[in-house]
Amino acid sequence: MKICVVGCGAVGSLFAAHLARLSDVEVWAYDVFEAHVRAINEKGLRLTGAADFTARLNARTNPKEIPRCDFGIVATKATHTRHAISATAHVFNEKSAVCSVQNGVGNEEIIAEYVKFVIRGTTFPAGHVIEPGVVGYDIKGDTWVGPFEPTNTPMEMVRQLAEAITRGGMNTLAMQDARGAQWSKLIFNASTNPVGALTGLHHGAATFFEPTGQLFYDLMDEGIAVARALGIKLHDDPKQMAQKAAKAPGKHKASMLQDVLAQRQTEVDFMNGAIVEWGKKAGVSTPLNKALWSLVKGLEHSWTNP
Amino acid sequence: MKICVVGCGAVGSLFAAHLARLSDVEVWAYDVFEAHVRAINEKGLRLTGAADFTARLNARTNPKEIPRCDFGIVATKATHTRHAISATAHVFNEKSAVCSVQNGVGNEEIIAEYVKFVIRGTTFPAGHVIEPGVVGYDIKGDTWVGPFEPTNTPMEMVRQLAEAITRGGMNTLAMQDARGAQWSKLIFNASTNPVGALTGLHHGAATFFEPTGQLFYDLMDEGIAVARALGIKLHDDPKQMAQKAAKAPGKHKASMLQDVLAQRQTEVDFMNGAIVEWGKKAGVSTPLNKALWSLVKGLEHSWTNP
Repeated sequence: MKICVVGCGAVGSLFAAHLARLSDVEVWAYDVFEAHVRAINEKGLRLTGAADFTARLNARTNPKEIPRCDFGIVATKATHTRHAISATAHVFNEKSAVCSVQNGVGNEEIIAEYVKFVIRGTTFPAGHVIEPGVVGYDIKGDTWVGPFEPTNTPMEMVRQLAEAITRGGMNTLAMQDARGAQWSKLIFNASTNPVGALTGLHHGAATFFEPTGQLFYDLMDEGIAVARALGIKLHDDPKQMAQKAAKAPGKHKASMLQDVLAQRQTEVDFMNGAIVEWGKKAGVSTPLNKALWSLVKGLEHSWTNP
Repeated sequence: MKICVVGCGAVGSLFAAHLARLSDVEVWAYDVFEAHVRAINEKGLRLTGAADFTARLNARTNPKEIPRCDFGIVATKATHTRHAISATAHVFNEKSAVCSVQNGVGNEEIIAEYVKFVIRGTTFPAGHVIEPGVVGYDIKGDTWVGPFEPTNTPMEMVRQLAEAITRGGMNTLAMQDARGAQWSKLIFNASTNPVGALTGLHHGAATFFEPTGQLFYDLMDEGIAVARALGIKLHDDPKQMAQKAAKAPGKHKASMLQDVLAQRQTEVDFMNGAIVEWGKKAGVSTPLNKALWSLVKGLEHSWTNP
């Protein structure tokens, strides 16, 4: 089986390295970060932290050099989904399925414009690139995958991918309806990320400081109402997710805060922006998510209009 | 007539310098900024910009050295009101009236804990301290004053103060109900200030960028609803104020953005916090003002909990 990891940054590297340990899987990684790709090809991809091993796999910056694959795992920032899948679409054919393990919602819709079968995915494991070829594996956790409804992806393909990732060492659950897991994480992310990005507070501080902790809950209530109106049964309670994450050791900066500190475009369109759009379709008002979306867009705008 | 300017920063200096030009007014200024006080006593207080002159007046860092005064004008940041009026309360007696020309609402309530007669005031002129003893007079504009309702300040005292400030060169209107002017500026400030502070956008950029410009209006709608429920007739349309200010030349940073860049405690409690509190009393929901208040409090919190 051939699997192409599209976007081999922190999260993509976790999938790529684990899958590359399997003798029956050939892993190809596509990434634009040349030094990382070169290091992987020369010395292998090393994970440290929650697991520590080095895996051999093929990495490329030129997608034309990647052979046809049975599965794809898209792990770019949501802002880069279209660019990445349009560059790698030729790698997949009518028998392939491509799974998003990205933040937010809306990535599967983009991927489905380029490939036949899409798998909806949500992943909890997190990491960070330490240096080219070396990725810190910070947080272990499950991954949930299911058919992306509009493409009618056969459940057998979903199970095959889940089974491979699980055998590689990352527990992955195949489910008929993967929206509940995705929306749980979406609602969690759409509160903790913009509040962290706008205040500079790390996750624990923002959760336990009463004004921002309450704002988390108020934002989540809007997202929960939208999910309910869409008929999505949440897999986890986003409020408990926030409390649990706040008790983790260390001062974890939300990924959107990391983006803001680096003046990188954030994923807010795929988080709060998506909740606002789905809220409109479902007839649920989402003024707080819209306000936070507006502020983060304004912050991004300030980098070019100081 | 003796007038004590309590807090002789940018705005206080505008009032102090103009009043000091009158032969029948003796101006005393209280401030904690020693170099500024020394420069004023040694070389006079100079304004440049919208007007250019130097005025002689008495400035003190020690409030015990200030004689009894007929009027007070409090011009500190709202966050310093209690400290400043408690330090200077002995300067005023039962025949004195003390006027706030500060941002937000809630300052008069604090001042009334220390003096008998309080005057509600709102001022548009703006400036900045260029160096000790020298203040840039950036924006001209009117000042509105009226009795602070709970202290039943005689209208005659209000008129006497307004007349003196106007003769000094800053047009000041005495009105029976000064709440409309104050709430117009409050609602304007409570949208433009926190959005500027959280995004880093200067006023024009935030107004003309669609997401933040719309957020201005959404925040204003809540404040307008609270004012209406309180029976306050707005003197100006905050939306027109924002549009007009956005067309002014230069890239004006809202005072709250200046505070944030200097990591100074902001006036958000007297702006969005006050709208939320008055909303509760009036039975009007203000979720956006509460969210912006929470974010600014979180931002302040991050300076000590990074």
